[in-house]
Amino acid sequence: MKNFLCYSLIINLILNMSVSEASIKIHTYVTKNNVKVFYVVSPSIPMIDIQIMFDAGSSKDGNYNGLSSMTHIMLDEGTSKHTNEEINYVFESTGSIFNASSSKDKSKISLRSLVDEEFLNPSIKMLKDILSKASFPSEALKLHKERSMAFIEESSKDPAEIAINTFYQSLYNKHPYANPTEGTKKSVGKITRNQLIDFYKKNLTRENAIIAIVSPFDLPDIKKITDDISSSMNSYADEKKTNKHKSNLLDAAEQKHIYKKFPSSQAHIYIGQLGIKRGDKRNLPLYIANYIFGGSGFNSRLMNEVRVKRGFAYSVYSYFYPLQDLGPFFIGVETKADQANDVTQLINNMIKEYIEEGPTKKEVDYAKNAIINGFPLKLDSNADILSYISMIGYYDLPEDYLTTFIHNISEVTHKDIVDAMNSVLKPEKLLTVVVGNEKSKIKK
Amino acid sequence: MKNFLCYSLIINLILNMSVSEASIKIHTYVTKNNVKVFYVVSPSIPMIDIQIMFDAGSSKDGNYNGLSSMTHIMLDEGTSKHTNEEINYVFESTGSIFNASSSKDKSKISLRSLVDEEFLNPSIKMLKDILSKASFPSEALKLHKERSMAFIEESSKDPAEIAINTFYQSLYNKHPYANPTEGTKKSVGKITRNQLIDFYKKNLTRENAIIAIVSPFDLPDIKKITDDISSSMNSYADEKKTNKHKSNLLDAAEQKHIYKKFPSSQAHIYIGQLGIKRGDKRNLPLYIANYIFGGSGFNSRLMNEVRVKRGFAYSVYSYFYPLQDLGPFFIGVETKADQANDVTQLINNMIKEYIEEGPTKKEVDYAKNAIINGFPLKLDSNADILSYISMIGYYDLPEDYLTTFIHNISEVTHKDIVDAMNSVLKPEKLLTVVVGNEKSKIKK
Repeated sequence: MKNFLCYSLIINLILNMSVSEASIKIHTYVTKNNVKVFYVVSPSIPMIDIQIMFDAGSSKDGNYNGLSSMTHIMLDEGTSKHTNEEINYVFESTGSIFNASSSKDKSKISLRSLVDEEFLNPSIKMLKDILSKASFPSEALKLHKERSMAFIEESSKDPAEIAINTFYQSLYNKHPYANPTEGTKKSVGKITRNQLIDFYKKNLTRENAIIAIVSPFDLPDIKKITDDISSSMNSYADEKKTNKHKSNLLDAAEQKHIYKKFPSSQAHIYIGQLGIKRGDKRNLPLYIANYIFGGSGFNSRLMNEVRVKRGFAYSVYSYFYPLQDLGPFFIGVETKADQANDVTQLINNMIKEYIEEGPTKKEVDYAKNAIINGFPLKLDSNADILSYISMIGYYDLPEDYLTTFIHNISEVTHKDIVDAMNSVLKPEKLLTVVVGNEKSKIKK
Repeated sequence: MKNFLCYSLIINLILNMSVSEASIKIHTYVTKNNVKVFYVVSPSIPMIDIQIMFDAGSSKDGNYNGLSSMTHIMLDEGTSKHTNEEINYVFESTGSIFNASSSKDKSKISLRSLVDEEFLNPSIKMLKDILSKASFPSEALKLHKERSMAFIEESSKDPAEIAINTFYQSLYNKHPYANPTEGTKKSVGKITRNQLIDFYKKNLTRENAIIAIVSPFDLPDIKKITDDISSSMNSYADEKKTNKHKSNLLDAAEQKHIYKKFPSSQAHIYIGQLGIKRGDKRNLPLYIANYIFGGSGFNSRLMNEVRVKRGFAYSVYSYFYPLQDLGPFFIGVETKADQANDVTQLINNMIKEYIEEGPTKKEVDYAKNAIINGFPLKLDSNADILSYISMIGYYDLPEDYLTTFIHNISEVTHKDIVDAMNSVLKPEKLLTVVVGNEKSKIKK
């Protein structure tokens, strides 16, 4: 089989030689009106994935939490030229798929279409219409608000949702990351059509956008498509626009424990603190550090101590979620209510010990090896590639991020990991949130 | 690093993956000990996806609802040779991904790995160990039962879950499809280690299995891999084994309305009846019929009447879910509690009218065109292909299902659709389930 693999690699290499050198790199282009484009040429699939990202996530909600989310949900509800039915008719009859959504930092509008002009042209025309002339009809807004408020109401009866929302609220306090992307029942209830229009005109603009594309097209076609799309985008010169990497976030002054009573026999626990931004040089060392601690599934320290040795929980994990501003580092675990105290104490002690003593050399070697071996399997579709290049484009990561990832992981040293952990993790300032019945109440 | 170039090549090949429709030819092979294999050669990705399907879903639970699900969840918790940590170490250190789960009819065990022997051999060895010697350790079972019961407890506070469970219970009565795959809190609480072992030995057997593979390998390698895997499978000759396509299911004798009170301002509604089996010749005509009625998103009749014209709901959909036995046809919608009556009446009338009058010629042409144009975009990854060939293999569908799908859709006539609808849909026997606060109570 090994011979087969080599043979197969060589054959494929030869067959793909003409496109290999071009494909391995993420290409960039800046449209005539200044929108940056990141694209990958994937020549053998007659399909195009277009994703337009805006710096317009829920952190731009201002006083109306849920505004970004609702603006994006409402985008295909109508334009000044077309009704919702007409919009959906065009996408559906051409087999195209349109989506729009927002997260904490960024929002995105995506279109998947066959590349044949017969399908692609009408879809792109409609995409442009949505980008330039969305009309946010009042009747559709009424339905979406009802639906969203019902969803939020139902989430408010879910102890896992209560716990994670409490964690974000307490960690981020008055920073916009404190708020759930979908808003609260109260804030969504107050959203008006005029607010959506205002948010759309000020935030879903060419100044605020980048475009990511995976398709068989080379530069001339990419130019044509992206110049066309970006020409339709609204423009808004925001003179007060702040540096997007500026942060006023501070870690808590001291350890903080929050308990919320909920009639659930299972306690939902989050423990964490502020982590790092996207693009931080410590990202890969911390990725490895976390992999060892709680990111790797069964062989992590957390799983070993919490589950294997003590049977406290079915699962426990940790991760860094780097954002434009300082994203959270957190540990999540569920356990029986009467074990909540033991579990939170154990995890707090483990973090302290891990930072003081660092990982072993064996742990680091194992983690690097497993991360490297697992990486290629994460890229098996255009959608995966699109998701990576979107992230790379949006967060200003190096354009060779994908092709250098494995090499860069292999270069991280034990010292890099220990230094990164020491500069970021602060066990004396951890936030702990527990939601569950009375037995899970934290003994401080 | 020595491997760096190799990985660059692999990534490059992944970026150039090809899954064009023409190349999706399904091959078959029967292993030495009689397990049928369905495989697709996807030459440019050095990755293998293996899926073993068993006729061992929750419909085989017998008196212990949740047994199939728990058996599969517990598979990687230990074997007579390896602990859970050792099992996970092998998969993780080679970058492989192992999964096991069950649904109503079938269950599946899957492995994704790089094709290089260095990674593939240890993963397959461990897969074989799991297939032949799973040990279902008691301590892990205790944790999984707790976790599962907590999950079920939390679901029982979700009106959407209550509604769909009530729908299945009422539609299927004493048939195994009536039960949720994960079981009930009571039934899961009673599951013992011996029951898992018994279920495993009798159901996860070579007599009960088929294998689906998407990889760069041709027949000689497929033979080697699948003969190897199937040689490790347990054997159990079940003399009482029933014909899997025999059905005792009957439609309800008359219309049935069920109301469950729940303190939710949004009513959750399911309306439906028994539909068809997988492999039924009426599948494609009904697929088109349903596409027009409620399967197509915005341009469906349901969306037009329920949402566009009346603003009753944010979304409404319908589908057929063909199973080994008669699967359900159902419509799902959420609306404000005080509109529940109007919505259920409207939908009941719409079904009646649709069956009496049939779709228009224009609707049929539009639907066929949209289904055909959208089809290629559904097959953009090995995972998609694997999912299709698994379904084709498990339900004895024609091996050219994928390559003939578009042609077969184009051949369906208006008469085929009307005939299929008339023979399957029975508006006078519809089941309606409503869950919501008092305002949503059904006026019969």
